[in-house]
Amino acid sequence: MDIDARLGRLRKLMRERNLSAYIIPTEDFHGSEYVGEYFKAREYMSGFTGSAGTLVVLPDQAALWTDGRYFIQAAQQLAGSSIALMRMGQPGVPALEEYLNDMLTEGSVVGFDGRTLSQRFVHKMAQKTAAKKISFAGGEDLVDMVWIGRPPMSAKPVWEISTDYTGRSREEKLCGVQEQMRAQGADILLLTALDEIAWLLNLRGDDVAYTPVFMAYLVVEQGQTYLYAHREAFSEEILEKLSEAQVTVDAYEAVEQKLQEIPALSRVWCDSGSVNYRLYNSVPAAAERIDKDSPVLHMKAVKTLQEMAHIRDAHVKDGVAVTKFMRWLKTSADREKITELDAARKLETFRRKMEGYLGASFEPIIAYGAHGAVVHYEPTEETDVQIVAGGLCLADTGGHYVDGTTDVTRTLAIGTVTEEEKRYYTLVLRGHLALGAARFVKGVSGQNLDVLAREPLWEEGLDYNHGTGHGVGYLLNVHEGPQRFQWRITETSGNVPLEEGMVLSNEPGIYLEGKFGIRHENLVLCRMGERNGHGQFMYLEPLTMVPFDRDAVLPELLSRRELQWLNAYQEKVYESLSPYFEGEELAWLRRATEELSHA
Amino acid sequence: MDIDARLGRLRKLMRERNLSAYIIPTEDFHGSEYVGEYFKAREYMSGFTGSAGTLVVLPDQAALWTDGRYFIQAAQQLAGSSIALMRMGQPGVPALEEYLNDMLTEGSVVGFDGRTLSQRFVHKMAQKTAAKKISFAGGEDLVDMVWIGRPPMSAKPVWEISTDYTGRSREEKLCGVQEQMRAQGADILLLTALDEIAWLLNLRGDDVAYTPVFMAYLVVEQGQTYLYAHREAFSEEILEKLSEAQVTVDAYEAVEQKLQEIPALSRVWCDSGSVNYRLYNSVPAAAERIDKDSPVLHMKAVKTLQEMAHIRDAHVKDGVAVTKFMRWLKTSADREKITELDAARKLETFRRKMEGYLGASFEPIIAYGAHGAVVHYEPTEETDVQIVAGGLCLADTGGHYVDGTTDVTRTLAIGTVTEEEKRYYTLVLRGHLALGAARFVKGVSGQNLDVLAREPLWEEGLDYNHGTGHGVGYLLNVHEGPQRFQWRITETSGNVPLEEGMVLSNEPGIYLEGKFGIRHENLVLCRMGERNGHGQFMYLEPLTMVPFDRDAVLPELLSRRELQWLNAYQEKVYESLSPYFEGEELAWLRRATEELSHA
Repeated sequence: MDIDARLGRLRKLMRERNLSAYIIPTEDFHGSEYVGEYFKAREYMSGFTGSAGTLVVLPDQAALWTDGRYFIQAAQQLAGSSIALMRMGQPGVPALEEYLNDMLTEGSVVGFDGRTLSQRFVHKMAQKTAAKKISFAGGEDLVDMVWIGRPPMSAKPVWEISTDYTGRSREEKLCGVQEQMRAQGADILLLTALDEIAWLLNLRGDDVAYTPVFMAYLVVEQGQTYLYAHREAFSEEILEKLSEAQVTVDAYEAVEQKLQEIPALSRVWCDSGSVNYRLYNSVPAAAERIDKDSPVLHMKAVKTLQEMAHIRDAHVKDGVAVTKFMRWLKTSADREKITELDAARKLETFRRKMEGYLGASFEPIIAYGAHGAVVHYEPTEETDVQIVAGGLCLADTGGHYVDGTTDVTRTLAIGTVTEEEKRYYTLVLRGHLALGAARFVKGVSGQNLDVLAREPLWEEGLDYNHGTGHGVGYLLNVHEGPQRFQWRITETSGNVPLEEGMVLSNEPGIYLEGKFGIRHENLVLCRMGERNGHGQFMYLEPLTMVPFDRDAVLPELLSRRELQWLNAYQEKVYESLSPYFEGEELAWLRRATEELSHA
Repeated sequence: MDIDARLGRLRKLMRERNLSAYIIPTEDFHGSEYVGEYFKAREYMSGFTGSAGTLVVLPDQAALWTDGRYFIQAAQQLAGSSIALMRMGQPGVPALEEYLNDMLTEGSVVGFDGRTLSQRFVHKMAQKTAAKKISFAGGEDLVDMVWIGRPPMSAKPVWEISTDYTGRSREEKLCGVQEQMRAQGADILLLTALDEIAWLLNLRGDDVAYTPVFMAYLVVEQGQTYLYAHREAFSEEILEKLSEAQVTVDAYEAVEQKLQEIPALSRVWCDSGSVNYRLYNSVPAAAERIDKDSPVLHMKAVKTLQEMAHIRDAHVKDGVAVTKFMRWLKTSADREKITELDAARKLETFRRKMEGYLGASFEPIIAYGAHGAVVHYEPTEETDVQIVAGGLCLADTGGHYVDGTTDVTRTLAIGTVTEEEKRYYTLVLRGHLALGAARFVKGVSGQNLDVLAREPLWEEGLDYNHGTGHGVGYLLNVHEGPQRFQWRITETSGNVPLEEGMVLSNEPGIYLEGKFGIRHENLVLCRMGERNGHGQFMYLEPLTMVPFDRDAVLPELLSRRELQWLNAYQEKVYESLSPYFEGEELAWLRRATEELSHA
């Protein structure tokens, strides 16, 4: 059955229900960044395999919205179908709600699976189409009735992460959450983000690509917690331990009934920005909703001392793998045929040799030459090119270890690179070093510090169109909030003071279309520093232990201070990694981390 | 009649009215930073002459709250009275509302002149004392009944500032305000900030120290504006011009009746943070209040092209005066006896020679040696010391010119200064230069950029306990909002993107108690820079034209970039000022602005 036949079957179901449109987003029921196979409804209905995009089906047409990184891929994959490509952000391209406003007649009903969109998203869409009295019906998953051979929802074994790693038991964590519920006057807390549930219960799973989480909802009350998940994924031992922590396990789908039975006048804490439309509206109208960020968001971001210690270990292991990869690629690219995909596979083999490695923390980006300028480029069979001497290769990859999650970008000089490439490489490095070396007083946020990374580029009339850094989970999502390095304060991204134990990436870049891309990324750990009469000072401890490629540095563009920072970091990398290197590899590491100086 | 006799008479009036406390703040009826003689009720009742402080009188005791800069002076001035000194921020010192909570019995009534506190202040005080059911009565000015020989309220002649200076007529400005009222659905706008009224009407006055404003309230409606002011201060010519702009003038006190007569259901825009309690509550409860920042706040902050051009002129004139003063002080301090007050007077004579000079824009700070470490030090007859060779002298002063308002701080090496003094001087200079040289994209705020000025100090475990910069009015308040350089985002100080035409100070410092203080302050003008594929860039044009004292700079502590910035600024100062210098003074200016380099 081709795409248009699938759309035809969907339209028949729409007609029977009097729906004028049907929305199929990329999200699972939990707003996850990556989703399991069961949830790839948008891919099934459109043929487009990218990681972001929303399909809207009308009786006589259909359109798919996606962002810049997927324009080319989406155009190719939609070519055989009747689906129009909506290039988000391009002039003349309407936003989804504008499209609905234009296309639908007054009083139309728009259908969608109410579990795939957040309450806040639907609410905003409804506001923007209110003049046309368009209503939204999230009751039925019509794709499920069309999808022949839909994979089952994943229910892989759930496993426990010990308090030796987490530093806090699930009892302690639950106690902290219940404390915050009391402070807010909340009787019930609804959690739906998979990483928050996994964190809170010290459990992990394997139901979502690149993220060791399991399918679940959680309802917390004082003294009792209800986990809604696939029971078969839990061992008797884990069930017993959960029971000891006053956590009962019920079927994944049973959460709706639980919510529907909430007594009137209860105060229910549920964040409308993350809870899906159907669950949010399962809470009786007679209950009062507290619409705030979940208390787990902040607790999870502040790592414990045990987590910090393990994260350091993970980064040394990851540093060994990535540095060996770096040497291999720089020395082999000219001698054998290596493509971007070859390189990604090779890096995976280096990481697999490391103890406790569980898998990649996101789709690896190995981008050679002009591909580096495509910010979210991921090599595929169609785009793959050979890595040859005379260009920059950007490698942005990461891994999950039992000790923590890594995310590192190095831009490698393959053979000889141009003065222009070196100049930009050094410019971006100046920003990376300035942010990495920052000292600041307690209370300062990533919004305040971001300019340190950007100023060297701004000075030259350059910028990069992404945040400078995101939070990173502990063996959870590689992208987590609430902290970030980004000057812009928006509705959904406020001013969050940095606290000891927060992990962030520091990853400024520069992208010259058709030429090359450069990004330098370390993970850093926020630490308390000196306390004196001027205040409590803080600093950023570098976690990532991989040398910056000195072959692309122009030392004369660095100030003395910047050179000192760079040399101190390279030396620290040498000290951390050298015990794991020997022979020719060790000699290479020594040279790769040697001090740089002004001529 | 001594202070305690005055308090006795006040207490008698309190008893007759059943008031358990009476609050006497420093503010006038408009929340002005400086106040006229008529408004110095707190000074009259306490004997304390400082510019900040709140007196609370109970039946059997009295207390005065003031901040760190006035601890010594207040202790001396309160010595003969029964008033206790409350040192704000010191351990164990209760906040005003805590004191009321502790001292008063349940259901007590606290009196105050309802025109001297903002609605928001009273509201917060009431919230914090709600448990004790304390109520607040702002109906009567009891001090007025005690105060024998109270000076009359100032009503000096109001004068017009031409559109050649302002760039916009009052009709255009009123039109812009009315446009914003329509956008907010407001029928009536109440303005009480004196600088906002003066700005909007292109009028100036002389009723408040250091601020060329006049006593007035303003009520704006569509098509009609009501000015409540001292009619005798207006010439027939100005009254006629106001009438042409649909502005009618009524008595200052008549504003209350105007507000009381607002029709039910009217939407009234009044900022509870600036409008006083009595006026706010004169608006009938049947009217709807829009409690937002006044639209004038932002309009006033963005200077017109004409204002920008005149401000540059004002700064060259002010630069001539301050630079001549700088030469005089550095070369004379060792030859003749000069005290801080002598120096302040001498600087005033230099400024008075400049065309269009109208007076100081704030109380001048000339602080020698350890006095420099007292952030808001102002020399008085009691504190005055001689300026002798072998120390730093901090001079923070400013003037009003018809062309604009200046505010400049230079720290001068008098004779030979120590290596330690030079090191700190250079450290603060690094922060000043980094912020001054910032390039940034449109949308960035002073909250984002502040770290550039602080990072060189933070790196050394140092900081200063004040904002890095404030907005500056055009021949109005030397301190104005909403823009500022300050990383901390608070309830009253949000994230305000910088726009072309905004003027701010750039004034990092360092204060070593008992030793010395250093501050480097320029005013800067936000400007549009290059627009390219990466965005719309902006930069800060230096307005202040006074050399930094090169005698205290350690060039080896500056990076090449920092040296370039400094040398470029000094050269620009030379080019701007040299036409006004000749002979020995010109030769001195040449030397004072000569290029510095690494040894």
